[in-house]
Amino acid sequence: MRMVDIIAKKRDGGELTTEEIQFLVTGYTDGTIPDYQMSAWAMAVFFRGMTPRETGDLTMAMAGSGEQLDLSSLSGIKVDKHSTGGVGDKTTLVVAPLVAAAGIPVAKMSGRGLGYSGGTIDKLESFAGFAVERSREQFLQQVRDIGVSVIGQSGNLTPADKKLYALRDVTATVEAVPLIASSIMSKKIAAGADAILLDVKVGKGAFMKSIEEAEVLAKAMVDIGTQVGRKTVAVISDMNQPLGFAVGNALEVKEAIDTLAGKGPRDLTELALAIGSRMLVLGGLVEDEQSGRAKLEEIMASGKAVEKLAQMVEAQGGDKSDVYETSRLPKAVIIHELVASEDGYVAQIDAEAVGHASVVLGAGRLTKEMAIDLAVGMVLHKKRGDQVKAGDILMTIHANKEELLASALQELEGAIVISTKPPVDQPLIYKIIG
Amino acid sequence: MRMVDIIAKKRDGGELTTEEIQFLVTGYTDGTIPDYQMSAWAMAVFFRGMTPRETGDLTMAMAGSGEQLDLSSLSGIKVDKHSTGGVGDKTTLVVAPLVAAAGIPVAKMSGRGLGYSGGTIDKLESFAGFAVERSREQFLQQVRDIGVSVIGQSGNLTPADKKLYALRDVTATVEAVPLIASSIMSKKIAAGADAILLDVKVGKGAFMKSIEEAEVLAKAMVDIGTQVGRKTVAVISDMNQPLGFAVGNALEVKEAIDTLAGKGPRDLTELALAIGSRMLVLGGLVEDEQSGRAKLEEIMASGKAVEKLAQMVEAQGGDKSDVYETSRLPKAVIIHELVASEDGYVAQIDAEAVGHASVVLGAGRLTKEMAIDLAVGMVLHKKRGDQVKAGDILMTIHANKEELLASALQELEGAIVISTKPPVDQPLIYKIIG
Repeated sequence: MRMVDIIAKKRDGGELTTEEIQFLVTGYTDGTIPDYQMSAWAMAVFFRGMTPRETGDLTMAMAGSGEQLDLSSLSGIKVDKHSTGGVGDKTTLVVAPLVAAAGIPVAKMSGRGLGYSGGTIDKLESFAGFAVERSREQFLQQVRDIGVSVIGQSGNLTPADKKLYALRDVTATVEAVPLIASSIMSKKIAAGADAILLDVKVGKGAFMKSIEEAEVLAKAMVDIGTQVGRKTVAVISDMNQPLGFAVGNALEVKEAIDTLAGKGPRDLTELALAIGSRMLVLGGLVEDEQSGRAKLEEIMASGKAVEKLAQMVEAQGGDKSDVYETSRLPKAVIIHELVASEDGYVAQIDAEAVGHASVVLGAGRLTKEMAIDLAVGMVLHKKRGDQVKAGDILMTIHANKEELLASALQELEGAIVISTKPPVDQPLIYKIIG
Repeated sequence: MRMVDIIAKKRDGGELTTEEIQFLVTGYTDGTIPDYQMSAWAMAVFFRGMTPRETGDLTMAMAGSGEQLDLSSLSGIKVDKHSTGGVGDKTTLVVAPLVAAAGIPVAKMSGRGLGYSGGTIDKLESFAGFAVERSREQFLQQVRDIGVSVIGQSGNLTPADKKLYALRDVTATVEAVPLIASSIMSKKIAAGADAILLDVKVGKGAFMKSIEEAEVLAKAMVDIGTQVGRKTVAVISDMNQPLGFAVGNALEVKEAIDTLAGKGPRDLTELALAIGSRMLVLGGLVEDEQSGRAKLEEIMASGKAVEKLAQMVEAQGGDKSDVYETSRLPKAVIIHELVASEDGYVAQIDAEAVGHASVVLGAGRLTKEMAIDLAVGMVLHKKRGDQVKAGDILMTIHANKEELLASALQELEGAIVISTKPPVDQPLIYKIIG
């Protein structure tokens, strides 16, 4: 088998065999297939696409390219959750303890943030002492003990995907849907998922800008799931405005705790219930979404959801009182209020601009090496559609340096649009696929 | 400027600026742009194509990427000739002395053969002592003295093209028309051509299999010529059967000498006159093709064409009596005759199969490092359309080893097809472009 023939076959619209896909993934991982062949192939995939069978094979080949997490010692169906990333997206902080409290084992590896997409692991470090690096045995034991653990990505999982992703980034081949889909799915499968719930974000603050694009990606991932025997459901949700009110690590943790207690923002609560209830269905715990939702609402109201988070924080080295007294979380020294200059309705809160401003404040990182400031960020006081009067507070900015606040304010220029008429309703969830 | 943005622009169908094309050629030549970006770009070009302006810019950037041959010390318009390669294609051996005898200065760099496409330089080495490596000054002085010199490619001409060509070969991007066209044209321009005559071969024994493909390539090259101020004419000629009767280095030299004397095969003579006459027009020596043709026929008949070749052979270190007594050229020890098994008409002589057989005999090389046998090859006795009787000789095979002869005979199995009815006429020249 020669890589040049595989490239030519894809270039001419052919369907690669399972063996050809295995050959290219293995060869690329071990270095016998050079970057320059892989990038030409990726560009051919950009133009020709891949069939569901090919994409499934690619996913499994990448999942098998390195270590794989064996969750078979945990009883039950392991349901993983993945978000394509957005601004103020703290859904995992809510969903993980919530579904664990319901009885779904959550053994989750999560990422750090890059750019304006926050990372669950960074957010969890807002709890002083919280350890995100755990041995395989500690990790599994904790799930056996309390039903939930969220740690950083560890081990040599999906090296083929890591290498290919870095290459795609510099060869303008990131945008190929089968490659995006198989990259996400291979990581979930290598991390031991039996079933997968995907939150595909769409809008100004997301990678996918249109619902059509998001739908194509969601469908590609659900197809992979079908292909490789992992039940997969995708939720396409809005990311034109930030999710919830809070953006920034400790601020988001506080909001997640409120939500677990049933006192969170409407949109975040709704998304967490929509995702969580479907995870209960995937996990075989309930028959349908409605009963899942009822169960989760009951858990929130009972205080068991907050308690599950507190157990996890304690088990991973933090202090559980941080969960019950959120004033103990990191706090910024400068609080700046942004007020409305006119009466009207909030027509837009540009998630991308808010995300950039949060990065400027120090809440996010532009390169993997940058340190972040857990305390800073912003809290919205109004959301899209809300009525405002001149002088009303639109947003509170939490900063630790005056010059960073000034830069953030520049980024926020024009981000919140006030109109005289209420804007047309924008759904939170556009579509469920799978 | 970032290469990743240039790749994305081309991927999305944009037209690159002159500066962007210069940036990528310069960066690729000096190594600041890596192979993996260049191959992704080449694949994007395969799918998106390039405008004539872009292709012209790419050609000039590659022509300028290394040394360039300065022919300005030679008077007159320097007309170069290029063939895309075929089986039995000894046209340059005929045309170079022929047009030189007519008064067009021929300072030509030519290549060695690879695969079943023979190389002029290899063929010329059939003359014992013939030197294909000459200093720049020797080369130019010879053209000033006798009007013609054909040497091997020397110096660091078009390094960008060399590097890109090697990369395209292993990344399935050879087939991108703008890249093929600019590769050919950049070499001609770097070699000092004021005007260019292209012989684009089409058919079983050529890179281009259909007339439509050949036309697209021919048009792309003529467009480049227009774009960069080099008058360019392309002849699209048949390569379904070998050109002339002889295939193999010394055998082809003998046939070229016969043709220079006006006693060559009909198709080779016709092609040499078609190409040569248009070179005289491009060189400003005659008004139109008809007068060019008359002039060349007169030169052939007068013996001046053969004499010009003899002068060149002598000037480059060979013995001119080899030209007048071709029995002095290398000769094979085994002569094997292939005869017709039935009466009928020759319906096909598969140029590709004949080419492969000649390589098997040792007349061509599969890798640049292989040595070739100048004496071996084959001579056809019949061409397509000829009537044959069972027992007539179809081809004489000249070999130096029995086992290679046996392998060549295997390659030739089914290559010559005899039918009961005469085949439909196939033109020698399909089209002239430019």
